[in-house]
Amino acid sequence: MHVEIILTVKEMRDQLLSGKTAVVIDTLRATSTIVTALANGAVGIEPLPEIDDARRRGKELAFGTYLLCGEREGQKIEGFDLGNSPLEYQPEIVQQKKVILSTTNGTLTIARASTAKRILIVSLLNKSSTMDEVIEVGDDLVLCCAGTKGHFSLEDFVTAGAMISDLKEKGISVIGDDKIQAACSLYEHNQNDLVELFSCSQNGLRLLAIDRLPDIQFCSQENIFPLVCRYTEGIIKT
Amino acid sequence: MHVEIILTVKEMRDQLLSGKTAVVIDTLRATSTIVTALANGAVGIEPLPEIDDARRRGKELAFGTYLLCGEREGQKIEGFDLGNSPLEYQPEIVQQKKVILSTTNGTLTIARASTAKRILIVSLLNKSSTMDEVIEVGDDLVLCCAGTKGHFSLEDFVTAGAMISDLKEKGISVIGDDKIQAACSLYEHNQNDLVELFSCSQNGLRLLAIDRLPDIQFCSQENIFPLVCRYTEGIIKT
Repeated sequence: MHVEIILTVKEMRDQLLSGKTAVVIDTLRATSTIVTALANGAVGIEPLPEIDDARRRGKELAFGTYLLCGEREGQKIEGFDLGNSPLEYQPEIVQQKKVILSTTNGTLTIARASTAKRILIVSLLNKSSTMDEVIEVGDDLVLCCAGTKGHFSLEDFVTAGAMISDLKEKGISVIGDDKIQAACSLYEHNQNDLVELFSCSQNGLRLLAIDRLPDIQFCSQENIFPLVCRYTEGIIKT
Repeated sequence: MHVEIILTVKEMRDQLLSGKTAVVIDTLRATSTIVTALANGAVGIEPLPEIDDARRRGKELAFGTYLLCGEREGQKIEGFDLGNSPLEYQPEIVQQKKVILSTTNGTLTIARASTAKRILIVSLLNKSSTMDEVIEVGDDLVLCCAGTKGHFSLEDFVTAGAMISDLKEKGISVIGDDKIQAACSLYEHNQNDLVELFSCSQNGLRLLAIDRLPDIQFCSQENIFPLVCRYTEGIIKT
């Protein structure tokens, strides 16, 4: 299987995605939050990069059927129901609700992936089940790291490495450039210390500064949710 | 010290380099070859990306004072004296000679670095002495990985990581984005198996295919040449 890793949303080009399966990764925290919300019973996630679009969309929906969620600079957006910590998305809060989500990097990356044949939303939490789907489908794979404001993001790259390691463990021959080896080696040498590694990243340091170590710990868990999250027609569902 | 890693020659922008020390890395093999040639007595290296420019430059020089060197697709250029294997650059061959060198990625990266305040040519072979110079000068540092035909190159990124690890060991506080952590972790976890790691890279595989394992082994050695290679006014000298 041919696998490409895109390091930041800035690098995403339509021709890299056309005809392929795109997997969007924003480990700290948007895609971890999306996966958690769906695992805990949300009926769907609408990712909208712009705050105003999210507010407008909320007004179109019946009161009580949705949650307006998201962050800027890691903090909950004023007047929104929830921020971007997966730990906020408990079953009693999200069950039967539609989640409208606006984040800095992750939702923008999802929007930019729209020319791909198939778009999957992944985190370490649902890595293995997503790779099973990727293998079953069999198309070439593009691992789209959201990055941080246009910069390389350590935790997204390591998560991409975890996906490649998973594919290899499942007997898939992975073909691609040297980023494949680099990401895979980084993951395999750090897989028992992901919390420590992620805590040194720019996003990790920012989360620690606002007392969100529990988020880093939560997002570093592998395969706790055996589900596949698909983005079609503007909405993410299992 | 603020440190930036540029992953490929394609990403080099004047504004990233202005006022800074640029360190050019092409571990397999151009910068390893340059460092070896100078360590073995060459009087200077003129890097010229274009083959025709290299030939023309040769014609301007007195017969017997220079060597015309370089590669395309890893093989010596037709009619040239030497290819791009550092093992060819033995003292009895290069002593007192000027080396005119044209390679696919490395010499292009050197040319593109010209807007930096200071340009140093580095490989694992002269890593520590170069970092001593970088520390003494004190300017911000840009580690310019040549990459491979515009793609990320594992061995260049790991060599950048070796530089960062060296700076940290010498007590320097390194500030930069997450590529710093990634490169440093990759190097530190693989430093005892660099030959094995580099043999899995695209360049490594290409060299193995033309029976150049000895080149990979040679280029993976650290700090065997305690010299600093500076590029000024079109020529690299110690």
